[in-house]
Amino acid sequence: MHSFQELSKQFSGHFNIKHFPEKPASLYEPADYFLGIGGKRIRPVMCLMGNELFDTITPDAYHVATAIELFHNFTLIHDDIMDKAPLRRGMETVHTKYGESTALLAGDVMLIQAYEQLNKVQNHFHKVLQVFNKTAREVCEGQQIDMDFEKMDLVQLDDYLNMIELKTSVLIAASLQLGAILGGAGEGNAKHLYEFGRNLGIAFQVQDDYLDAFGDPEKFGKQVGGDIMANKKTFLLIHALSVASPAQQSELKDLMENNPADKVVKVLEIFKQCGVDAWAKDLKDKYIDVALQHLEDIAVVSVRKKPLRELADFLVQRDY
Amino acid sequence: MHSFQELSKQFSGHFNIKHFPEKPASLYEPADYFLGIGGKRIRPVMCLMGNELFDTITPDAYHVATAIELFHNFTLIHDDIMDKAPLRRGMETVHTKYGESTALLAGDVMLIQAYEQLNKVQNHFHKVLQVFNKTAREVCEGQQIDMDFEKMDLVQLDDYLNMIELKTSVLIAASLQLGAILGGAGEGNAKHLYEFGRNLGIAFQVQDDYLDAFGDPEKFGKQVGGDIMANKKTFLLIHALSVASPAQQSELKDLMENNPADKVVKVLEIFKQCGVDAWAKDLKDKYIDVALQHLEDIAVVSVRKKPLRELADFLVQRDY
Repeated sequence: MHSFQELSKQFSGHFNIKHFPEKPASLYEPADYFLGIGGKRIRPVMCLMGNELFDTITPDAYHVATAIELFHNFTLIHDDIMDKAPLRRGMETVHTKYGESTALLAGDVMLIQAYEQLNKVQNHFHKVLQVFNKTAREVCEGQQIDMDFEKMDLVQLDDYLNMIELKTSVLIAASLQLGAILGGAGEGNAKHLYEFGRNLGIAFQVQDDYLDAFGDPEKFGKQVGGDIMANKKTFLLIHALSVASPAQQSELKDLMENNPADKVVKVLEIFKQCGVDAWAKDLKDKYIDVALQHLEDIAVVSVRKKPLRELADFLVQRDY
Repeated sequence: MHSFQELSKQFSGHFNIKHFPEKPASLYEPADYFLGIGGKRIRPVMCLMGNELFDTITPDAYHVATAIELFHNFTLIHDDIMDKAPLRRGMETVHTKYGESTALLAGDVMLIQAYEQLNKVQNHFHKVLQVFNKTAREVCEGQQIDMDFEKMDLVQLDDYLNMIELKTSVLIAASLQLGAILGGAGEGNAKHLYEFGRNLGIAFQVQDDYLDAFGDPEKFGKQVGGDIMANKKTFLLIHALSVASPAQQSELKDLMENNPADKVVKVLEIFKQCGVDAWAKDLKDKYIDVALQHLEDIAVVSVRKKPLRELADFLVQRDY
């Protein structure tokens, strides 16, 4: 069994090659540029881990892991266009550097290249493609729903959860599941692994929302309150709006509309008055517990699950 | 054997279903809307014709034909964004009606849905996916190169030909080839059919450029001179610039820069002085001849080729 770190290194060695032809450089240089700015490659490594949970890692798992990472990068390039994001991981986004039309096409060829990788798969091919397509569609749905939410004043928690699932969790879940399928896992085990990933993904997003508001800037490594400044719908804001008193509600709305200098401090005060911080911790713990129960329920010897338990601890920590 | 018209009717019956789920409607209604505005469905029907050239049409051919039409619509939605086109077939484009971000995602799910159709294919699966992916990549390359050309003063004929091949011809060629592969055609026959389509596609584009300048507005059904007004690089302009005298060259450039009221008339005069009209007819005939020779070289009885010969006559006519 390999740890996340070991597999991460192995995957990088495999993935850090040229994925596109030389010409036309006006199309493929932007695509290569974006792959070059890196990332944690969490999803493809999860595919390898899902595979190794059941068997020795197969070449097919590397093909699917590569396809997953290419797909993920396709979504990032297109999301950055939609979000008009100037930077990603401190580097210029593709559309900032090369223009929107080229970014659009660079994303398109990245998606096509993902399918080219899938075409190398020898076993369980149709099942793999089916899961991949379903997940790909869901990620697009999540992005659309997220954009729909931006135009809405009020979003219900269930709807937000559904969006997060589609936009973030299903790809994590499917990465594990695809590895499991390639490892010969039965339906039941593969489903449990999927649910482990799906719940872990939601817990991770709750944590992300929490840290943006309540995180220690030094430990967290980025400015606190960004979501609040941008009036971003988060688990915290949605919950706060649903439990706040009429007075707190109108103060929140006032702060969001008028953006005073002390907006972050004031919003955090209301969040704390509403017990949003404790609620978010509980919510995260709830999803971690469900995730770990699904991992527990997979019918393989416990020692094989160790890397996935460690990964869960690494991604979502109970101490904040 | 079926004619293009018969297969077109059969394909429409097969294709005119709902291709997407109900929800989220904000994503799938735009996708369905675009499919609903129709089109001649030439490419998928060519896939069926390529299939029937070798065998009775298989269910697989319908799956691939559907994938091709979905792919083609994906390229149209994204091209319309890049070209900022307000209308397509007299209807609002997706980005005009629903916004650019939604159009981007609607194109993405259209491409994913094409692969979902391909996943239904039972035989020759990997070969089909390989040809499809290669062609998809090439079409993106063609669009990028076309955009690159817009920023250039001078384009060489060979480079323009290469762009047209990628942007237009390869999908026509691959549609026929995919049908042939599914019909059990050997490498050689499939290759000849591909070349038939590739050369026919180029002839079609030469004709399109020709008609925009020299076509009879009543027969042609649209305003003549649109390409000239927009300074669009076409076979005609590229050839004219390469054979014109220094005086004609500077007059052409002057007309393109200053857009006088009599621009179309004046440019057409220079085109005629340079013999561009006769040259274009010859060029078209050359590609038709090569195309028909490849059709001739396919080792099946001549009677099976009749629908494809008729299609060639229908798409590219020698009388203009």
